[in-house]
Amino acid sequence: MREVFQQELREVQDRLVEMAEFVENAIENATRAFNESDVSLAELVIADDRKIDSAALALDELAINILARQQPVARDLRIVVSALRISASLERMGDLSEHIAQLARYRFPEKVVPSSLRETFHELGVLDVAIAKKLTELLRTEDLKLAEEIRNDDDRIDELHVGVFDAVLGETWKGAAVDTVDSTLASRYHERFADHAVTIAKNIQYLATGEFSATA
Amino acid sequence: MREVFQQELREVQDRLVEMAEFVENAIENATRAFNESDVSLAELVIADDRKIDSAALALDELAINILARQQPVARDLRIVVSALRISASLERMGDLSEHIAQLARYRFPEKVVPSSLRETFHELGVLDVAIAKKLTELLRTEDLKLAEEIRNDDDRIDELHVGVFDAVLGETWKGAAVDTVDSTLASRYHERFADHAVTIAKNIQYLATGEFSATA
Repeated sequence: MREVFQQELREVQDRLVEMAEFVENAIENATRAFNESDVSLAELVIADDRKIDSAALALDELAINILARQQPVARDLRIVVSALRISASLERMGDLSEHIAQLARYRFPEKVVPSSLRETFHELGVLDVAIAKKLTELLRTEDLKLAEEIRNDDDRIDELHVGVFDAVLGETWKGAAVDTVDSTLASRYHERFADHAVTIAKNIQYLATGEFSATA
Repeated sequence: MREVFQQELREVQDRLVEMAEFVENAIENATRAFNESDVSLAELVIADDRKIDSAALALDELAINILARQQPVARDLRIVVSALRISASLERMGDLSEHIAQLARYRFPEKVVPSSLRETFHELGVLDVAIAKKLTELLRTEDLKLAEEIRNDDDRIDELHVGVFDAVLGETWKGAAVDTVDSTLASRYHERFADHAVTIAKNIQYLATGEFSATA
């Protein structure tokens, strides 16, 4: 029984890693579509979000099924409950990737953000992709050094996010309303994506250390 | 044992209702602070968000505790797992109320949105408050008619949300960049608030009918 349970926990973990890989792919394509105004890549991201949603539903069913059959306690129970939370966060990260891709599609053939902010959004995209890759590795290896790196990357993203608002609200801003709207939303989506990664990282740290931390 | 368990489920439900009441209060004050530029009310909402966060943490601990001790199966298990999900959504609704209040505080003593959009935001606020009240009642009574009403209110909110973008991107828009940013974010926060309520309503419908529906 115990062995079956351990095998099922590995199955949960494998599925979380797989979901994280889908998300990694989504944010990689979304930020490229966004930065390069690649409308077909944007459409791919939008279509593929269903895969992430289905994976989340399937994983939740598996987790509930394990709770019902194995009735885990203590740390094992926390692992299964955490899997439900992590799955919800990954699902939202998929949605946010989709939102970034949608901005690229709406504005096509125009670029989404004005040239003065393109470098900032390039860096935001690079950081979100890096965070997604670290998250996949964190889920695979439970190496807590990666959780720390994700928090640091998120701090830099928060700085860039504030920088976008400073630029848009600054006296030298020449953007039209559409540029202001797109920059505001895009910055928010990039920032929320990273927030969810931090929430997942905290969940994993909690499992490893037993210390509870608010699910920001 | 069974009776203790039923009592614990009622405790979970009572706490969810209490959290929903906190959220109702938060969105009521946040939208009033937003519409009337009431900075002290905004600060109250911001300070009170901690109560919602603590309530969410406490509820999650209780739910995990019940899973560990009672090892529920079938419908009982679904109820406890749903409580975890509902608590997470309520916590986010509290955050979004806080974000709306923060916009009011940032712009004080100015109003957050230009006069041309004030009526729209008034209606968005009224609808979010109505949704929060219906959600509290839905959690208390499990009257599925309320779930349906929440979905309908959300449809109207989506229309208004699109209307804000149409206004901001229209040719007659005279707002400064700060108005564009605030209107974009505020509209998004109002809309996300309602989305979470719909997600919770779907959770409750699912518990009642057994039919699974994607967690938006």
